[in-house]
Amino acid sequence: MKRKGSSPTMKDVAREAGVALGTVSKVFNGIPVGEEYKRRVEEAARQLGYQVNNYARALKTNRTRTAALILPNTVNPFFALLAGDVCKALARRGYRMLLALSDADPDAEQQCVRMVEQNKVDGIIGLTYNPALEINESVPFVSIDRYFGPAVPCVASDNFGGGQMAARKLMELGCERLLFFRIGSDVPGEADKRGDGFQAACQQAGIGCSTLLLRDEDGYEPFRAFLREHLRDGKLDFDGIFCNTDRLAYHVCRMLQGMGVNVPGDAQVIGFDGVRRFGSEALYCSTIAQPVTQIAETAVDILLQEDRGHLPSLICLPVSYIGDGTTKG
Amino acid sequence: MKRKGSSPTMKDVAREAGVALGTVSKVFNGIPVGEEYKRRVEEAARQLGYQVNNYARALKTNRTRTAALILPNTVNPFFALLAGDVCKALARRGYRMLLALSDADPDAEQQCVRMVEQNKVDGIIGLTYNPALEINESVPFVSIDRYFGPAVPCVASDNFGGGQMAARKLMELGCERLLFFRIGSDVPGEADKRGDGFQAACQQAGIGCSTLLLRDEDGYEPFRAFLREHLRDGKLDFDGIFCNTDRLAYHVCRMLQGMGVNVPGDAQVIGFDGVRRFGSEALYCSTIAQPVTQIAETAVDILLQEDRGHLPSLICLPVSYIGDGTTKG
Repeated sequence: MKRKGSSPTMKDVAREAGVALGTVSKVFNGIPVGEEYKRRVEEAARQLGYQVNNYARALKTNRTRTAALILPNTVNPFFALLAGDVCKALARRGYRMLLALSDADPDAEQQCVRMVEQNKVDGIIGLTYNPALEINESVPFVSIDRYFGPAVPCVASDNFGGGQMAARKLMELGCERLLFFRIGSDVPGEADKRGDGFQAACQQAGIGCSTLLLRDEDGYEPFRAFLREHLRDGKLDFDGIFCNTDRLAYHVCRMLQGMGVNVPGDAQVIGFDGVRRFGSEALYCSTIAQPVTQIAETAVDILLQEDRGHLPSLICLPVSYIGDGTTKG
Repeated sequence: MKRKGSSPTMKDVAREAGVALGTVSKVFNGIPVGEEYKRRVEEAARQLGYQVNNYARALKTNRTRTAALILPNTVNPFFALLAGDVCKALARRGYRMLLALSDADPDAEQQCVRMVEQNKVDGIIGLTYNPALEINESVPFVSIDRYFGPAVPCVASDNFGGGQMAARKLMELGCERLLFFRIGSDVPGEADKRGDGFQAACQQAGIGCSTLLLRDEDGYEPFRAFLREHLRDGKLDFDGIFCNTDRLAYHVCRMLQGMGVNVPGDAQVIGFDGVRRFGSEALYCSTIAQPVTQIAETAVDILLQEDRGHLPSLICLPVSYIGDGTTKG
């Protein structure tokens, strides 16, 4: 590693270019000066390796080229993917990313917002659990997975379509007795539409669908009890199970294995998310995969859009089915 | 969500407090004024919900209370854990975190450094792959996992001790023919000491140790070929394998399974990292677990230390063995 000495200042650039300090300032702030002056200042800045002080520029232009991302954590691999893709989408557009983690706690989220507002960010992208979040209206905000109303753009997967896709795929693969398992936050969100889509597709096909809907606090054990209750002579009452996350599908497959129910022979299981072992190795189960990169790119595009008068209130991006081991196809 | 109107300014605070604008400025910048003035300004700021503009303050105090973290990506679950823990360690100390992702590309890392330097961060924590990285000497820098020399503090796991621990654990569990598998970057780093420690412990115990050391570009297939070559009549030449990452151990266990070698019956496998399925579920294998939270806390403590004259050049934090399925204990 090389440690460089102190950076050149605007005065150094002015001296090198042979112009007045005010001329350098004008060039750096985009105020018109003669072409020849502009060329000399830019040449001198390049030669000296002058870095424009973004803090000083931010005060003048009211732009910091910094956006914040608020997430519950980076441990959940879906959030980890999202953090990486938002960071890269911002970097491609010349923006830096402040990361703030809230642990899905409403008060912590409000503190995150306060904290990033203090830094005069150009915008905030948030995957939040606080329906009453207060955000300064001068700060552009894009929500992921949670719809706040027409004035706040929300970007999400096509959760409803994904739920339908899971039901139709299970039926196509021969399932006749369907079950939907859900665990999650009790704050309403776009992800709730996974179950709505699944049940709508079942109803449309004229077949029944059992459900068990739990909150995170309930843990995974009630699913095991439910499965045990529906196990008669080693045979499960259901032959197709849709879980609202890959993580739940992973638990359910292990529970079934422990009960002697063969997956996918006796029961086929589809999860949702499309997360992979070690972030990029094998999937955990057959799944409805979220388009994480497109979610990130779309959220950043909307965040940085100049015309704030005509923004969509909800954008749902297409998901895709990937069969991998826990279904027959 | 509530969208608030525009924020109060210093002028509003001055009016509310019934003092001059300069008095407000002094209070916000820690310049002494009379106690009564100070009280009135603080009371008015509180009542109006005035947010100190950190950009303006940064220009005056040369402090931004922002630090940057440079990582290759957030997809690798070890990096995802580290990103989360560094972010939380900074937040606990009132600091925000800029995240910059380099994809382990040396040029991209240099660009990350330039980019964060432009934002006048108070320091940088980097897990980098560029031994020639240039960093302005006025910016505190703490390296993770890569030692640059005595002037740049480096925080890492006790990789050497972890390698020794793996060898001794395998011997304790009855292994006599040991193998070390390594895949990684060809830039020298602290993680190389995992193999050094493993081999040192073997030598000390007077038993041999075979090795296969590969670079990331080589991929995992040469490990499979090596294992096949050492398989005679369905029996592997080795009964204890130490892999330098959990990810490699995961691949090796699948390869062995495919060859009919029982893990842990015929061969015991230990990985390194301690990463978990979905970030917080089951481990992938028996492992030497890195103390990620302590690495993050230590790196942040060193980064923010006022006295930069007496910093350690290398801090190695203790790892721990966790047996989980791929060893006999």
